Amino acid sequence: MKIAVDAMGGDFAPEAIVEGVVMAAAELSEQVSIVLIGKQSVIQELLQKHDVSAVANIELVNADDIIEMSEHPTKALSQKPNSSIGVGFKLLKDGQVNAFCSAGNTGAMHVGALFSIKAIEGIIRPCIAGFVPQITGGHAVMLDIGANADCKPEMLAQFGEVGSIYAQYTFGIERPRVALMNIGSEEQKGSLVAQAAHQLLKESRRINFIGNMEGGDFFAGKADVIVTEGFTGNTMFKLGESFYSTAKQRGISDEFLDKTNYESVGGSPILGVNGNVIIAHGVSSPLAIKNMISLAIRQVESDAYTKIAQALS
Amino acid sequence: MKIAVDAMGGDFAPEAIVEGVVMAAAELSEQVSIVLIGKQSVIQELLQKHDVSAVANIELVNADDIIEMSEHPTKALSQKPNSSIGVGFKLLKDGQVNAFCSAGNTGAMHVGALFSIKAIEGIIRPCIAGFVPQITGGHAVMLDIGANADCKPEMLAQFGEVGSIYAQYTFGIERPRVALMNIGSEEQKGSLVAQAAHQLLKESRRINFIGNMEGGDFFAGKADVIVTEGFTGNTMFKLGESFYSTAKQRGISDEFLDKTNYESVGGSPILGVNGNVIIAHGVSSPLAIKNMISLAIRQVESDAYTKIAQALS
Repeated sequence: MKIAVDAMGGDFAPEAIVEGVVMAAAELSEQVSIVLIGKQSVIQELLQKHDVSAVANIELVNADDIIEMSEHPTKALSQKPNSSIGVGFKLLKDGQVNAFCSAGNTGAMHVGALFSIKAIEGIIRPCIAGFVPQITGGHAVMLDIGANADCKPEMLAQFGEVGSIYAQYTFGIERPRVALMNIGSEEQKGSLVAQAAHQLLKESRRINFIGNMEGGDFFAGKADVIVTEGFTGNTMFKLGESFYSTAKQRGISDEFLDKTNYESVGGSPILGVNGNVIIAHGVSSPLAIKNMISLAIRQVESDAYTKIAQALS
Repeated sequence: MKIAVDAMGGDFAPEAIVEGVVMAAAELSEQVSIVLIGKQSVIQELLQKHDVSAVANIELVNADDIIEMSEHPTKALSQKPNSSIGVGFKLLKDGQVNAFCSAGNTGAMHVGALFSIKAIEGIIRPCIAGFVPQITGGHAVMLDIGANADCKPEMLAQFGEVGSIYAQYTFGIERPRVALMNIGSEEQKGSLVAQAAHQLLKESRRINFIGNMEGGDFFAGKADVIVTEGFTGNTMFKLGESFYSTAKQRGISDEFLDKTNYESVGGSPILGVNGNVIIAHGVSSPLAIKNMISLAIRQVESDAYTKIAQALS
């Protein structure tokens, strides 16, 4: 198994990325190697600080260009085929790597996935999934957390199905409990989109829909899959992550609140595309990168995207 | 000044309500009295447990009916004019009380306000404001937190103006910083409604618009007024409140996290109507009721609703 990582993407790239990759490499099984994509000379210099044995399972692939965080995704991708993101998607599309991860321009990652490996047939819109730690243990899969600010009810219903398959295969949860984020427990509550989505989710035979959940249930362990529009999902997800930074500012250290730290999972998969694509926070630290690689490995092993494609075919 | 309180509304009514009113009464200045509305015999029995002097500034007004939490707001209000909520709005409309507070049926409180004291002329839709504790001190006013699940951009722009006036007069903040909750800092980010609202807020000369804020800034002290649709506002506000219960479950006690407890403010005003109407959580405890009464007094003193009406005229 080969996991490709964009060495040049992120606010602290390439240093933090290479550091995280080296941390991950120390724990990899023999079957896994990491493909670092970026300016070869820069990466080599950073890797040379480490023992040869410590970086033996890291391969380099050169990419001369970088897509900056502020660049327009579609324009940047077409103008810079030799950017680390462009090269990453080429490797992924050609089957030379099993997953591609980046902390760089999120829009470029999304567009790159759509243009290279493409959306799974039948998927209305791919989405981004976030992992919400639950106080009862484990994580809930929340989707969408930002790819689609405006959603149609049919998209939310599909997020429920996609999230359910992902939770089943990647987290090993039998019959995942799927809930719709809403502003009341009754089915007639909420926005027009949420009301219509509730009916579609209720009618779906492919999922175990448990009804609406409210904002206060976010960490409460009531659901395995949380369905919401990208706008609400993004704002809630970031608020949830801020529990960690707020607690830290208050000098509080707690095992559960520590899990709300973005670093503890490190990445968010784009779901509904024909391959494993994982994006990370721009501010990603080495620990976040290391954990993102663990997630990528788990996702490749679970083969969730093939299961999603099978379910939709 | 007279503050009317619905004795019969809320999951733990009338006991918790009466208890909270007695707590508040102990700290009232001479100019303030509380008008308790509900079944006279029941309330009298509860008040008799206290010294006569402790309840001297509490008046009773009888109301034979109760609107249950599950009842349809409009239907219940027309069929039960002698309900505690119906009587409360009659007193408020007739100018016999300066504010009306209830932990009962939120929909009935909203509809009751619209039917009795009515929306201020020029207000597109009244909204509900929530108070978000800020780690830098004080609270931000967030609106809407649930009255309008779907909003038009013009509504969001107006929430900005209403919230700004409220923050100025009730919290004494000069030129309140107004921010739009969004999923990115750039103005072209977000849902179609958020994008259009951003432009309207930017063009408004009545407010100090500081741009978008993100979910992670919720507690960060970046804004005094947080503008958002009722759907996102409600889910985020409830998630923010869950910080307290999550911390408590983890055995954490902290001065700031304690402020995320709904009890610490106790109530949410309906803004954009011709009077002071405050609603509280159904689960309200005596402490929450006591704090809701403090908020009502502050709001009456600030005369914010008149200032809002003047600004719109």
